[in-house]
Amino acid sequence: MQFLSDNAARVHPAVWAAMQAADAPDTPYDGDALSARLDQAFSALFGRPCAALWAATGTAANCLALAPLVPPHGAVVCHREAHIEIDEGGAPGFFLHGAKLILAEGEGAKLTPATLAAALDPIRRDVHQVQPQALSLTQASEYGRAYSPGELAALCDVADARGLRVHVDGARFANAAAHLGCSPAEACAADRIAALSFGFVKNGGMSAEAMVFFDPVLADVVRYRRKRAGHLQSKGRFLAAQILALLEGDLWLENARAANAAAQELAAACAGRLLHPVEANELFVRFSAAERAALRAQGFTFYDWGEGAARLVTAWNSAPADVAALARAIAAL
Amino acid sequence: MQFLSDNAARVHPAVWAAMQAADAPDTPYDGDALSARLDQAFSALFGRPCAALWAATGTAANCLALAPLVPPHGAVVCHREAHIEIDEGGAPGFFLHGAKLILAEGEGAKLTPATLAAALDPIRRDVHQVQPQALSLTQASEYGRAYSPGELAALCDVADARGLRVHVDGARFANAAAHLGCSPAEACAADRIAALSFGFVKNGGMSAEAMVFFDPVLADVVRYRRKRAGHLQSKGRFLAAQILALLEGDLWLENARAANAAAQELAAACAGRLLHPVEANELFVRFSAAERAALRAQGFTFYDWGEGAARLVTAWNSAPADVAALARAIAAL
Amino acid sequence: MQFLSDNAARVHPAVWAAMQAADAPDTPYDGDALSARLDQAFSALFGRPCAALWAATGTAANCLALAPLVPPHGAVVCHREAHIEIDEGGAPGFFLHGAKLILAEGEGAKLTPATLAAALDPIRRDVHQVQPQALSLTQASEYGRAYSPGELAALCDVADARGLRVHVDGARFANAAAHLGCSPAEACAADRIAALSFGFVKNGGMSAEAMVFFDPVLADVVRYRRKRAGHLQSKGRFLAAQILALLEGDLWLENARAANAAAQELAAACAGRLLHPVEANELFVRFSAAERAALRAQGFTFYDWGEGAARLVTAWNSAPADVAALARAIAAL
Amino acid sequence: MQFLSDNAARVHPAVWAAMQAADAPDTPYDGDALSARLDQAFSALFGRPCAALWAATGTAANCLALAPLVPPHGAVVCHREAHIEIDEGGAPGFFLHGAKLILAEGEGAKLTPATLAAALDPIRRDVHQVQPQALSLTQASEYGRAYSPGELAALCDVADARGLRVHVDGARFANAAAHLGCSPAEACAADRIAALSFGFVKNGGMSAEAMVFFDPVLADVVRYRRKRAGHLQSKGRFLAAQILALLEGDLWLENARAANAAAQELAAACAGRLLHPVEANELFVRFSAAERAALRAQGFTFYDWGEGAARLVTAWNSAPADVAALARAIAAL
Repeated sequence: MQFLSDNAARVHPAVWAAMQAADAPDTPYDGDALSARLDQAFSALFGRPCAALWAATGTAANCLALAPLVPPHGAVVCHREAHIEIDEGGAPGFFLHGAKLILAEGEGAKLTPATLAAALDPIRRDVHQVQPQALSLTQASEYGRAYSPGELAALCDVADARGLRVHVDGARFANAAAHLGCSPAEACAADRIAALSFGFVKNGGMSAEAMVFFDPVLADVVRYRRKRAGHLQSKGRFLAAQILALLEGDLWLENARAANAAAQELAAACAGRLLHPVEANELFVRFSAAERAALRAQGFTFYDWGEGAARLVTAWNSAPADVAALARAIAAL
Repeated sequence: MQFLSDNAARVHPAVWAAMQAADAPDTPYDGDALSARLDQAFSALFGRPCAALWAATGTAANCLALAPLVPPHGAVVCHREAHIEIDEGGAPGFFLHGAKLILAEGEGAKLTPATLAAALDPIRRDVHQVQPQALSLTQASEYGRAYSPGELAALCDVADARGLRVHVDGARFANAAAHLGCSPAEACAADRIAALSFGFVKNGGMSAEAMVFFDPVLADVVRYRRKRAGHLQSKGRFLAAQILALLEGDLWLENARAANAAAQELAAACAGRLLHPVEANELFVRFSAAERAALRAQGFTFYDWGEGAARLVTAWNSAPADVAALARAIAAL
Repeated sequence: MQFLSDNAARVHPAVWAAMQAADAPDTPYDGDALSARLDQAFSALFGRPCAALWAATGTAANCLALAPLVPPHGAVVCHREAHIEIDEGGAPGFFLHGAKLILAEGEGAKLTPATLAAALDPIRRDVHQVQPQALSLTQASEYGRAYSPGELAALCDVADARGLRVHVDGARFANAAAHLGCSPAEACAADRIAALSFGFVKNGGMSAEAMVFFDPVLADVVRYRRKRAGHLQSKGRFLAAQILALLEGDLWLENARAANAAAQELAAACAGRLLHPVEANELFVRFSAAERAALRAQGFTFYDWGEGAARLVTAWNSAPADVAALARAIAAL
Repeated sequence: MQFLSDNAARVHPAVWAAMQAADAPDTPYDGDALSARLDQAFSALFGRPCAALWAATGTAANCLALAPLVPPHGAVVCHREAHIEIDEGGAPGFFLHGAKLILAEGEGAKLTPATLAAALDPIRRDVHQVQPQALSLTQASEYGRAYSPGELAALCDVADARGLRVHVDGARFANAAAHLGCSPAEACAADRIAALSFGFVKNGGMSAEAMVFFDPVLADVVRYRRKRAGHLQSKGRFLAAQILALLEGDLWLENARAANAAAQELAAACAGRLLHPVEANELFVRFSAAERAALRAQGFTFYDWGEGAARLVTAWNSAPADVAALARAIAAL
């Protein structure tokens, strides 16, 4: 009974079906009919014209999306615990040619106007210090916290005032959108941001994330950067197929709702133990070593989170019986 | 009847089957059981210990394999028409941090000791000129020409004498090996080279190439570089599955033989028209504009090759009837 | 009697005097009173508003000036024998983050609209090939050839038509301008180009070159790039002093005229031996091995130029007696 | 009466004299007789074989010295307030191709084994996190604090245990060595470290710093990297001359002692106001806004340091009368 991560979960049957349907000759790279449908599909979803490109990983999607926003001598502001800072093996340094990450604080791995200001105000406007050009937010955050539309707007106000273009790392955007219950556009401030990395791999996909550019001119640059980074697959139709399958009939939302519901079921059993409110599909839960051992002895797998806690992650396909069993086991501790 | 390229061909049923069999929870990234089998599988194939990593594209496989061979202030010697120079969107400049490509000549896009020397001899050994550290060969070459084991040995001798480590771009290595009829190790001088980019996408795969390091220490560096380049997929088991399916029972060779045989069938019809001997699955054929129009009118698709020629590419799944039809149509011109 | 190069020649007394006059406390970096005068001095020289920054070397001046013209995924077109390609140790790859140099041909290391077209026309407008964004010309060229204003205009027309911004490598701009006899603005097409690297080190300076930006916005970017490249000296006043000393009273032109006159004196003695017309301060002269030995035996130093030739370089301070002696020695061969 | 910084101070007369003596033709770049003497001069100073290269700025000296110690996918550990992190305009990101700076804490901008461990221990040894390869210390630190030989040894022990090569940023190494009173080798743990950036510009020089490599093989790489970064000056003899002039007769130590003595004279007047012990030539002093205004009204110039403090910097040529006047003025506050 696996609660380690959603990043290796099974592939949704609809995704498999779409991939197999795509197994006919078509133009290579992103010249195929499926890739050609992405702009339209995301424009419909977000209610505004946008350009969308696929990439195989979240790291690539984040860093390629940031590339046209930041010159090599510039910087991106992000949370100290953002994935781009902590878990991408230095990919921003590579894709942005040595541009800097400026790290800001914030509870629940969420930035606020005040923490942004605290990070940015000390930077002198002279050539001896690296100047910020972009802001990268994570929706949902590394601790499974969602930014409300109001919070996003407040951060975009700061970004505007300081001349920063905004990128949203949406590796778990689906979970955040499902939690917020607002429109996808509201869930990422689509009218205010430059680019969204929209994750599908953790949500039923196999190997496709989308970079959505609300300023379509950016996509023209990223097409070159994607090829240059070795991310332009010749059978790109199989990536487009995955994304379209998950967008169709709002399967992406349905999957995210399932993962979120499983997380809420566990959260209910963790009352008093939660390190962070549960607003997506991740739980950070206080457990003693003995408690963790007891759970593992019952067949539940999960990662430790520091000394006295664990991280539990649900997925689109978390088995209801497993979830219920874990909830019971926690309640019984 | 498609003879445009092998790079968008269908995925082999055995590959599909292996991918679907891999759709069970496992450790993410390359910690899964299938990825763990790659070193052993390639070591068996090449008869010597090697370390193998997957990547989704040939561009990534080439550039990541070159990365540990060349410092940013160094250079790679390759043919003037090599894929890394011509068709990778500047990826070597990106992955190698501005290292240079030194371009050498050679008939059929094949290097020779003499053309290598002609490119390297003029380089002064001083800091004003970029010094070569690696040699990249393409097997089969951009014109579908195969290096014989003897030719490879002669080039490796030059490389040794000049302190260059050798990389083989094997996007169509299978086709070259099938043509040569020697062992896979002989087909890439496995005992002499540092790394081979072993292509599967053009040969029945979907999205997996292998980087094979005959000096396994190199793989340790590339594991970091791969993550940093956003090429470490979280569901890497699906890439490993593709590769293993094609290695198993020598399906990779069988597929390549089929493509090569189709190419030979066409070659027989092109007597007197061929720009290059056919030693893999590509044909470069002299056709007048009228002849090309005539073939296209009969439903054959292919790319022009300059003014008076065309490129025909066969694939593992070129339909025998289509091949025969094209051969007849050419003969009838 | 030294005719090896102008790049290690003595420093002009006026430059020494200006440097010593600058040895009083002032604001560090480029905040000093002398650096502040550069924009005005070059604007007056070129008859149009420009922004000028110092850098210690020609390589830095070239590559920093190119930096804002070319994104990392782009390319610069230049002559196959341009200094940035041949003699800067791969600096463009470093400063431009792996951007590519596209090499064009041309007699005397000079580009023409036709050779530019020959280099650029084959580039497909797709993501697989690196797209050019800038053109770099060398005035005077590597073979001491000067572009006439008309030739510059024709090349700028091509650049405009293809969307390329133009940089001029003017390591020996003074010699070209002195030869042409036109205004400095005409000698570099100041009304058409983005940036000029204006050399002083070879012409009486010690360690200061100027980057002149005819689009002053570019200078704002380069100020950051210069610091990031470690080229912002804290006692920058000593670099500004050198440049101002050479601009004042047109000492730069006077020095260049002296070097050119010496070159012409030698050229007259080399009738029938010259590989290139002499339009600056370099001569490429056919000499047999015996002739070179004979000259060296008389105390003249110079570099061989391939098998049957030598390169003679005069400088601002070539001693008239030495020049006359060499001319006599050549005539007597 | 200037106490703003030592970085724009006058050039020592002996340095001027040496530069003028160098104004005769010699081999360009670093092929001249003076540059050739550097290895020997520093080997004598440090009592062990080392290779030394000049560079014009401290930023270049730091980043070029670090370059051979850290691959692009690696990291350097340094203090959160180190110059390379705070004041070099992102130069490490440029010279190290996106390698990361891992920031550690420590009082007085000095690292300790414990703060190093606190920064390094959380880094997982997997490809998702950037792995450290080098440690950069600053002697004297950004707050004018000197590491004792014992402290250096303890940090080198940590570095050894973790496989980190050590670089010392010695922009004010002279001041630290003068303060410590030990041998130059002891002042930088010459027997334990890979490279020292030895500053001269703040200590009587004009435009020359030295990179001293205790592993001479590193210098061979840096020679290429220096050229590639545009830092190889053609009249390099003028940089070597500055360094040799300051090394000769221990002028570097004499100058540093003068600056340190001036700082101690001020420190004595600042009893109870000092934010940091004074161990070099910088003082960080608590002054109210009114006090700062009062001092400035008397003609003293210096930078504010945050809200309630100021930074005073003495230099090799701080006028004794000015120093005494400032000491009196402070005492009289």
